[in-house]
Amino acid sequence: MQVFTHASVATIDANSDGYGLIEDAAVVIDGDRIVWVGETKSLPADYASAPATDLGGRLVTPGLVDCHTHIVYGGDRAREFEMRLEGAGYEEIARAGGGIVSSVKNTREADEASLLKTALKRVDHLLAEGVTTLEIKSGYGLSIDSEMKMLRVARLIGEQRPVHVVTTWLAAHALPPEYKDDRAGYIRDVVIAGMDRAHAEDLIDQVDGFCEGIAFSPDEMALVFDHAAKLGLPIKLHAEQLSDLHGAKLAAERGALSADHLEWLGQDGVDAMAKSGTVAVLLPGAFYTLRETVYPPVQALRDAGVPIALATDANPGTSPLTSLLLTMNMGATIFRLTPAECLTAVTRNAAKALGLTDRGTLAAGQRADLAIWDVQHPAELTYRIGFNPIHARVFGGKLV
Amino acid sequence: MQVFTHASVATIDANSDGYGLIEDAAVVIDGDRIVWVGETKSLPADYASAPATDLGGRLVTPGLVDCHTHIVYGGDRAREFEMRLEGAGYEEIARAGGGIVSSVKNTREADEASLLKTALKRVDHLLAEGVTTLEIKSGYGLSIDSEMKMLRVARLIGEQRPVHVVTTWLAAHALPPEYKDDRAGYIRDVVIAGMDRAHAEDLIDQVDGFCEGIAFSPDEMALVFDHAAKLGLPIKLHAEQLSDLHGAKLAAERGALSADHLEWLGQDGVDAMAKSGTVAVLLPGAFYTLRETVYPPVQALRDAGVPIALATDANPGTSPLTSLLLTMNMGATIFRLTPAECLTAVTRNAAKALGLTDRGTLAAGQRADLAIWDVQHPAELTYRIGFNPIHARVFGGKLV
Ligand SMILES: [Zn+2]
Ligand SMILES: [Zn+2]
Repeated sequence: MQVFTHASVATIDANSDGYGLIEDAAVVIDGDRIVWVGETKSLPADYASAPATDLGGRLVTPGLVDCHTHIVYGGDRAREFEMRLEGAGYEEIARAGGGIVSSVKNTREADEASLLKTALKRVDHLLAEGVTTLEIKSGYGLSIDSEMKMLRVARLIGEQRPVHVVTTWLAAHALPPEYKDDRAGYIRDVVIAGMDRAHAEDLIDQVDGFCEGIAFSPDEMALVFDHAAKLGLPIKLHAEQLSDLHGAKLAAERGALSADHLEWLGQDGVDAMAKSGTVAVLLPGAFYTLRETVYPPVQALRDAGVPIALATDANPGTSPLTSLLLTMNMGATIFRLTPAECLTAVTRNAAKALGLTDRGTLAAGQRADLAIWDVQHPAELTYRIGFNPIHARVFGGKLV
Repeated sequence: MQVFTHASVATIDANSDGYGLIEDAAVVIDGDRIVWVGETKSLPADYASAPATDLGGRLVTPGLVDCHTHIVYGGDRAREFEMRLEGAGYEEIARAGGGIVSSVKNTREADEASLLKTALKRVDHLLAEGVTTLEIKSGYGLSIDSEMKMLRVARLIGEQRPVHVVTTWLAAHALPPEYKDDRAGYIRDVVIAGMDRAHAEDLIDQVDGFCEGIAFSPDEMALVFDHAAKLGLPIKLHAEQLSDLHGAKLAAERGALSADHLEWLGQDGVDAMAKSGTVAVLLPGAFYTLRETVYPPVQALRDAGVPIALATDANPGTSPLTSLLLTMNMGATIFRLTPAECLTAVTRNAAKALGLTDRGTLAAGQRADLAIWDVQHPAELTYRIGFNPIHARVFGGKLV
């Protein structure tokens, strides 16, 4: 048993507006669970003898949840980024081996140890900012073996660092060159057959796909979702990033945990998501990097009561971003979310996007995943840019 | 004497295009100066017996220079940021005590110790990213005593941290409430009289102003510049941020070191800056935060050969940004500078914007201010977002 006292606690309680802030609060932890949260002066006598840490007014929030990343990959795309800024076109970059093909090539060639080593550097940046739950997708292998390799590395990250990793099967990310004339074969022999194999090895927590003109159609995604349902795996979808294929509606109608990106989402998609309780995961890092001009329909999502999450989308091509705090600032500055919406978006709603209800809020019974910050007011977390005011992180009740 | 070997060195040499990259290079340091840079295999025999550190292929760049900050201030503006996102208008925020007035009030009320303490937290973030030279402006005091207090704190930062601080007299930042009906009196009795007093205490390295409809006119700035010239102080100007008052031209014609912001800069300003060798300091953090839509004329600046620098503009209102690496990414992503231009913009050109020619490049005779990075290629510094790959920092020949 341990007690933190004299903290300002943002509970992110679903029943209160905004931060669910309790001033001069205490949090009591027993093992890996929170057993009590409330005003310090109301601390029950039972807990008064437990070892106490005075937080001197610091802010405590739920540990942050990054619910959408592609953080395991081989190589990087810095030279491609540079070539584009030097004026190279799509063709020239493709000829130089750039684009997602280069990440696929480098990921296939890398062994688990080197994928793990390079990913951990990026993961450590997220953890240093208070992240305690991290989603990691496959999707740069595009063969059964290399997709499984990526997810084994994701599992290793969860073993080697104090963070809970949620793994996602994203073989339906892009069509690899060897299947360019056989889309159906890729879906059947890699995406679906691989799902069986990876599921048998307990490598898959959820199933995702990229539904877009340059990737997979709604009909193709439906086949993938059908199979995920057979295996009892929850689903989610990269939808409406570059055009409106009504992917979010498809996913929501099948009870998807989340639909992600959503710049081109129409009212039909908003309504379907509201009905199913599907979380809208917005990814401002990709919007910023791609210099998009069509904004996700934030007001329509609010009006419909769709929960909004934010994530880094950490990936080597369109969002080489490994700061969830900066993602919060981008959520406010670019997408006009309020700071309270931004904090909820990387805690309670991000947990919901992963199907997790035991975290993302601070209340008795929840996992004891906390972030402790050297700030006076929770709005500061969103306001500052490129500044990390973390004081400490608590993962499963342990200071880490 | 000490030697770093087996590094990839970006010299940022003015005579070479781009990074001035030397592969498998060595850098020899004697005291606080660089005495030799070249290929490791060509290391002169004289230096072969000096203590050597093998950098294993890591990248070495000049120590970074943040040439435009307002990093010393009282309070913060997080709640104002939040109110705006919650829909509050300018009037409502002003009534709640927001805007620059709140920073002035909090800065006037704070003593040196508390200004120092809060500024150091922000400064430490910059240093952790390889900054070795830092410009700090006054401008939130707007009275002689409180402007001098800010610059004394700036000097203390340079004493308490391994960083070279350049101080800037920016009393002409805004008109304080007590002078709202006496603009001429403020220029005469505070901006100019205070310049004399602060200069006498050696608190001023350069003189700046904010030339804008909401701040000071070109005629008012001319009076300030006249006085700076009498004292032999170099000048610079916040110009053409929100409109084109031809401030950059005014400053350039008086030999200004830099003109800063420049979103609305016209060809007359570009030409005048090219003629005088005035550096264009672009501030993408403010552009991003204010969601500006008029871009600085980057191609015209390039065509005219105007050196381009980038800086954080770290300030509580329009750019609460304390990452120079993120500033580089914004320079590329938002302003379309190449990664080589971005690195030059925070080294050689940023030093030039401060009138410093003994740093910002790596060559014999230069100050031994280095940043050592865990990256393979210098483009990575600009490509990644919210990631700090620093390995070590060398300030005046000392590993810090
Ligand atoms: Zn994604
Ligand atoms: Zn400024």
